[in-house]
Amino acid sequence: MSRVVITDMPRAEVLDPQGQAVERALRGLGFDDADRVRVGKRIELDIDGPDPEGAARKMCDALLANPLIEDFHVEVV
Amino acid sequence: MSRVVITDMPRAEVLDPQGQAVERALRGLGFDDADRVRVGKRIELDIDGPDPEGAARKMCDALLANPLIEDFHVEVV
Repeated sequence: MSRVVITDMPRAEVLDPQGQAVERALRGLGFDDADRVRVGKRIELDIDGPDPEGAARKMCDALLANPLIEDFHVEVV
Repeated sequence: MSRVVITDMPRAEVLDPQGQAVERALRGLGFDDADRVRVGKRIELDIDGPDPEGAARKMCDALLANPLIEDFHVEVV
């Protein structure tokens, strides 16, 4: 059984409205030194079986990530 | 100018409804080997200034994280 971390971020060339909203909110609070904010997901889970990384990639393809607008990364920790 | 990664996860002792929903959906798709799913946020941003890690911690305290139900981690990459 392995603990797997999936990082799922908006692709660089795609607009990130959540990141823009966070950036505006930070500046409104006086954090003028924040820039290029991107907001994505981090998913942690246990995966049983011989190939946890491959299983996690299948889960991303089937459900967890939208390949049109997101890039995901799988790490077994 | 530094690129900073903030990881913000639901605390271990706190119920994570989003993680539970993802787990149910994965099992519904036949991924029976997924367990203990937790879903959190990953925020990437540029921070100008001499202490980007300290600035990121202040941003978490002020806006980005809810310390009652979330644990955050700051990394300068």
